[in-house]
Amino acid sequence: MSKAILVLNAGSSSIKFELFRLVHGEPEPELSGQMEGIGAAPHLLARDSHRKVLADRRWPGPDVSEHVKALALIMDGIGPAIAEHEIVAIGHRVVHGGPDLAEPVVVDAAVTEKLRALAALAPLHQPHNLAGIDAATRRFPGVPQVACFDTAFHRHHPWEADTFALPPEFYARGIRRYGFHGLSYEYIAHSLAETDPDLAAGRVVVAHLGNGSSLCAMRGGRSLDSTMGFTALDGVPMGTRCGQIDPGVLLHLMQEEGMSAGAVSALLYGNSGLRGMSGVSQDVRALSASDRPEAAAALRYYAYRVRREIGALAAAMGGLDALVFTAGIGENARDLRGEICAGLEFLGIRIDAARNEANAPVISADGTPGDASVRVLVRPTDEEGMIARHVIATLGLQADASPGDPGNAKSQKAGTALG
Amino acid sequence: MSKAILVLNAGSSSIKFELFRLVHGEPEPELSGQMEGIGAAPHLLARDSHRKVLADRRWPGPDVSEHVKALALIMDGIGPAIAEHEIVAIGHRVVHGGPDLAEPVVVDAAVTEKLRALAALAPLHQPHNLAGIDAATRRFPGVPQVACFDTAFHRHHPWEADTFALPPEFYARGIRRYGFHGLSYEYIAHSLAETDPDLAAGRVVVAHLGNGSSLCAMRGGRSLDSTMGFTALDGVPMGTRCGQIDPGVLLHLMQEEGMSAGAVSALLYGNSGLRGMSGVSQDVRALSASDRPEAAAALRYYAYRVRREIGALAAAMGGLDALVFTAGIGENARDLRGEICAGLEFLGIRIDAARNEANAPVISADGTPGDASVRVLVRPTDEEGMIARHVIATLGLQADASPGDPGNAKSQKAGTALG
Repeated sequence: MSKAILVLNAGSSSIKFELFRLVHGEPEPELSGQMEGIGAAPHLLARDSHRKVLADRRWPGPDVSEHVKALALIMDGIGPAIAEHEIVAIGHRVVHGGPDLAEPVVVDAAVTEKLRALAALAPLHQPHNLAGIDAATRRFPGVPQVACFDTAFHRHHPWEADTFALPPEFYARGIRRYGFHGLSYEYIAHSLAETDPDLAAGRVVVAHLGNGSSLCAMRGGRSLDSTMGFTALDGVPMGTRCGQIDPGVLLHLMQEEGMSAGAVSALLYGNSGLRGMSGVSQDVRALSASDRPEAAAALRYYAYRVRREIGALAAAMGGLDALVFTAGIGENARDLRGEICAGLEFLGIRIDAARNEANAPVISADGTPGDASVRVLVRPTDEEGMIARHVIATLGLQADASPGDPGNAKSQKAGTALG
Repeated sequence: MSKAILVLNAGSSSIKFELFRLVHGEPEPELSGQMEGIGAAPHLLARDSHRKVLADRRWPGPDVSEHVKALALIMDGIGPAIAEHEIVAIGHRVVHGGPDLAEPVVVDAAVTEKLRALAALAPLHQPHNLAGIDAATRRFPGVPQVACFDTAFHRHHPWEADTFALPPEFYARGIRRYGFHGLSYEYIAHSLAETDPDLAAGRVVVAHLGNGSSLCAMRGGRSLDSTMGFTALDGVPMGTRCGQIDPGVLLHLMQEEGMSAGAVSALLYGNSGLRGMSGVSQDVRALSASDRPEAAAALRYYAYRVRREIGALAAAMGGLDALVFTAGIGENARDLRGEICAGLEFLGIRIDAARNEANAPVISADGTPGDASVRVLVRPTDEEGMIARHVIATLGLQADASPGDPGNAKSQKAGTALG
């Protein structure tokens, strides 16, 4: 048996998972996949680390209506592929750690209670994350579980980047700019520190552009500010979310047009952003391929708002040494990257067209020594890998396992950390 | 008799006024003042152009409960000072011209109807502006009146600066980023064009920092983007308004904490910003003088958000040639200007401490020829003067009057323009 760590990311109707072998204290990807359509048309798809399909199964919706059942089917589905692995720990992506949780925590009853109390801050995500933890606890009793937060990496922002201009009691009761996508930013920070320590020590804007999008200003590998605030609605536009919007628009829709808060919420979360603007799709590839003017316009708006936020975050840090594009759009949407960077030459950003076209790791043109040129990088993110690293560090899972080693000593250490 | 133009700015409980003599087709300030406390504790204060008090009167509240009565008392109060003037036109500051009105318009029944229909876009201001027009129409029947809009100067923004990431039908029905303080920005644009034509042709951020605050990006004297959006709530924090805030905060307060839309509106308009954060005052002077940490913190937040927006607007324009501070805070709050600019050296902004301390017209340090230094200016704004110029241009009031000249020919021309 070799030791393995299971990473889960549970949403409202899906569970994403990735299994990592523990090799010399490092996580090695073994397989990954997702169960989608829980409660509707469930579909399990799992692949090994070479993208070979390990499981591809569908069920009638009513049979898989909640996370406990879904996790059982996932484990059955991938069972043959992980027969020789012992799952020694489970890591969970949890959207909200509130004002206090700046590090991953081992899950116990008190932690679960605390996370449940934070559900009001992220009602669309937190309850499902907790359902994932509950399902894993039932399926793997006694196996230590670690909650890793999208907010944690941002918890050392200076106060002025964290507060709104509201009376102090609002800040005190948790109405703050938390920032999200922290696991992605933390991964990029670690990755940069390994490959480009000089840049990592400097002022970096990371543009995490995916179906959810935000940007992070970091200096010395620490987050100083982010475009996302209290919820995942704020900042730059997203697939179906509006990004920054005048608060007066919400008041107008409710007070003058009679919309309910629920209807406004549904509009801003689900029918805005790229899909709402274009009427075509939330997918940048589909928009790029579309000949409808609304599709091109939506991409132009997206690029404009991202460009504006790069300027804002550079100002927040007093300058810029590097810009990193990551996540689905950031890693792949060449034209959009080019449009975002066009007009940022005054910051020292100059894109090499051929490198950008090739999705090269460095897409900026070479500067002359001593000039103020900004390095522009394209770098894959790995939130699941970051969670696995957190699990290893939090539980002290340092040793790798050899076949036949039950790894009891380490499991006991993990048990101790569980408290 | 010499010809004069009366400029009115009517709010919910106040009417501000300024009288300009028409001299060689230019407006010359003659007197100005305001009636405050309409409906509560009315107080008229008027001064001539040398700041000498011309009228200082108070009334019991119930006697002056609406704008018609207030305007009559204003005219009585300043009557002796303007006995030799003939008011040939009246200019009104009107907050909202909607999506279409990009220029001042002569008020007639159709225009009044149109402006009334726009009241839903600015329910806190537009009805009072219209009450001022109504009062002036009654008091000065037959005298042409011109409505000048805070939104007009921004009406040529590119679409991506004007839209939210909502379905196109929202834009079509007027839910856009209008931008405000347009009369102030237009005045600064004209003023720059006269004194610094090279700068005026370039990329300029104007920071209109007063009790209401916003910033405008302009190139070649035209507005390209602004921090204020659909309402006067958005952008940078203000005296009592929140500025930019996550839309999720509004949804949270209503859906999770049970606040009504009206209560949220009252909070964000009236008890946020500098006063809400500090619990001390909305006045920057009082905050600077306070030894409460909340007061210093509120100013730090204010400077941080303005700094961020300068970076964002520079990115929107592809760079920056000049930064202009104007309005009450912009023209006078030295320390705050210094704090805003600290950290913007990467944009080429370097403040000369002595010049800043002196509120000098140019507060940037001298650059070396050919460097990328940004000129930083402090310049008084004059929204009333801008309105008077618009009145003159719109009505074709070119000739000045000599004593005894009734100016009928021009009044008739104005009458024609009135349509």
